[in-house]
Amino acid sequence: MFDIVYGLEMIGIVAFAISGMIAARSKNMDPVGVFTIGFITALGGGTLRDLIMDNHPLYWIKHQEQPIFILCLAIIFSYWNRLGRIRESRIVVPDAIGLGIFSILGAQLALDLGHSWFIASLLGVMTGTFGGALRDTLCNEVPFIFRKDQIYASISFAGCWIYFLCQWQLASETVSLTIGLLFIVIARLLAVRYDIRLQRDKTY
Amino acid sequence: MFDIVYGLEMIGIVAFAISGMIAARSKNMDPVGVFTIGFITALGGGTLRDLIMDNHPLYWIKHQEQPIFILCLAIIFSYWNRLGRIRESRIVVPDAIGLGIFSILGAQLALDLGHSWFIASLLGVMTGTFGGALRDTLCNEVPFIFRKDQIYASISFAGCWIYFLCQWQLASETVSLTIGLLFIVIARLLAVRYDIRLQRDKTY
Amino acid sequence: MFDIVYGLEMIGIVAFAISGMIAARSKNMDPVGVFTIGFITALGGGTLRDLIMDNHPLYWIKHQEQPIFILCLAIIFSYWNRLGRIRESRIVVPDAIGLGIFSILGAQLALDLGHSWFIASLLGVMTGTFGGALRDTLCNEVPFIFRKDQIYASISFAGCWIYFLCQWQLASETVSLTIGLLFIVIARLLAVRYDIRLQRDKTY
Repeated sequence: MFDIVYGLEMIGIVAFAISGMIAARSKNMDPVGVFTIGFITALGGGTLRDLIMDNHPLYWIKHQEQPIFILCLAIIFSYWNRLGRIRESRIVVPDAIGLGIFSILGAQLALDLGHSWFIASLLGVMTGTFGGALRDTLCNEVPFIFRKDQIYASISFAGCWIYFLCQWQLASETVSLTIGLLFIVIARLLAVRYDIRLQRDKTY
Repeated sequence: MFDIVYGLEMIGIVAFAISGMIAARSKNMDPVGVFTIGFITALGGGTLRDLIMDNHPLYWIKHQEQPIFILCLAIIFSYWNRLGRIRESRIVVPDAIGLGIFSILGAQLALDLGHSWFIASLLGVMTGTFGGALRDTLCNEVPFIFRKDQIYASISFAGCWIYFLCQWQLASETVSLTIGLLFIVIARLLAVRYDIRLQRDKTY
Repeated sequence: MFDIVYGLEMIGIVAFAISGMIAARSKNMDPVGVFTIGFITALGGGTLRDLIMDNHPLYWIKHQEQPIFILCLAIIFSYWNRLGRIRESRIVVPDAIGLGIFSILGAQLALDLGHSWFIASLLGVMTGTFGGALRDTLCNEVPFIFRKDQIYASISFAGCWIYFLCQWQLASETVSLTIGLLFIVIARLLAVRYDIRLQRDKTY
């Protein structure tokens, strides 16, 4: 079990770090800004999760290869010009992957620590969305909470419950994890593609 | 003692959640935004308090009926149109109640954990004001720290000291709690009514 | 050893508190705002460090004379008009001293708790820069992450590694601490004096 979870975590971290660095580069930040945004996007959600559940040492302190990897990625992103020219619209795919992986892993960790399904789903949503929310707050003029984007947190919430139900009925951890994960990634990409929102904007 | 404290806590949570949801609706946010602002306003102060004092599990994880209740309230607020039309000026009363309850309960918890009066009053002020400060930061264009509003944190600070002095002299927990609480709520409402400020604005 | 570390910590707190209060006064904030910004600038970095490393009780709760001292300083700053007229450019020197002291002390504490050099240098940078970043975010219109200021976090990072190498080679804690500290303060002042940046601004 450990290997799959650890592998997924690394994929999620890379995906979120890349989404953060694309955003930082498209705002023309300097290398320290690129690393800071990448670091916060990739590790912010997990740090909030670990602090709230008192799960010490934090996972990026236990696995220091993760921040080292983000540092290398930030140097490549800052000085390799072709990467600097990636448009911000390319964030969508790595962001959806990071959202899926972190939501499910956050919910799973909360279950392992003995929390209820409801608390675990809240912690899954926080783990999945907090890094991206910080990235958007630091890189955008409009605060993330005002933007009526395509459904985001709701997909993460639904994905966590699908994962719980699968695990309860199927008893196979790996299959449930895959189903929950795929649901979130696919639903998020469809929401962006077909512009699905909770509420239409009337006034702005 | 437990019942009074728990009952007050629930009243404070409902008051702050409502103040957050009124602010979110008046900014025309979608249901996820309404829940997020309500959740952060109601539970932000207590989460900061528990993290700083290493008081785990966090109170809303221990009492999961609290976030469930906020979720139900957010659904009602989002889809019941009459509630959506409440003006932002109606925040004042629930906000004053939340400020009073969370300040006194935060200070009391800090005393219970063996901290000094001064540290307990600081933690009381943080517990009482942090949720509302986050709400104002997320819902307003002007950061809360720039607004020379009617006295707010100072009332919370004074109320904590009144509570400590009463408890020390009267030896009755319930009476002291009530006096401190009433002081903060009434003083805050008077400050808004008669526009009492620490410093007048000259330049803005 | 304790005395030197504690003395340095107090100097760092005073330096950062003053830099925060100058910023708050130059924005014409009221006394509560001056105290809040001073408190957050001086104690924010250490609080983040202690929360991330689960180092409880927090240092300002253990040493309550520190917040009391900041409170007294805030009252003097708010009501003594001559201090209120200090220009914001005067922040540079206390800010450089605070950056140096908190970076090195944060890194040292992380080493003491058994973390690797890399993790310790990250925590040193966080401890040194977080208070100032919060101050700049709360007091400025332009978020700190967008400003291509003279090198700041990079100096803190380099200073931590110089401290580790000195400690490893020289085996004298006090001498290494002094070298790391002086490097950061002097490098920062030179960076401001000669306007050294990681990347020039082209677009803004």
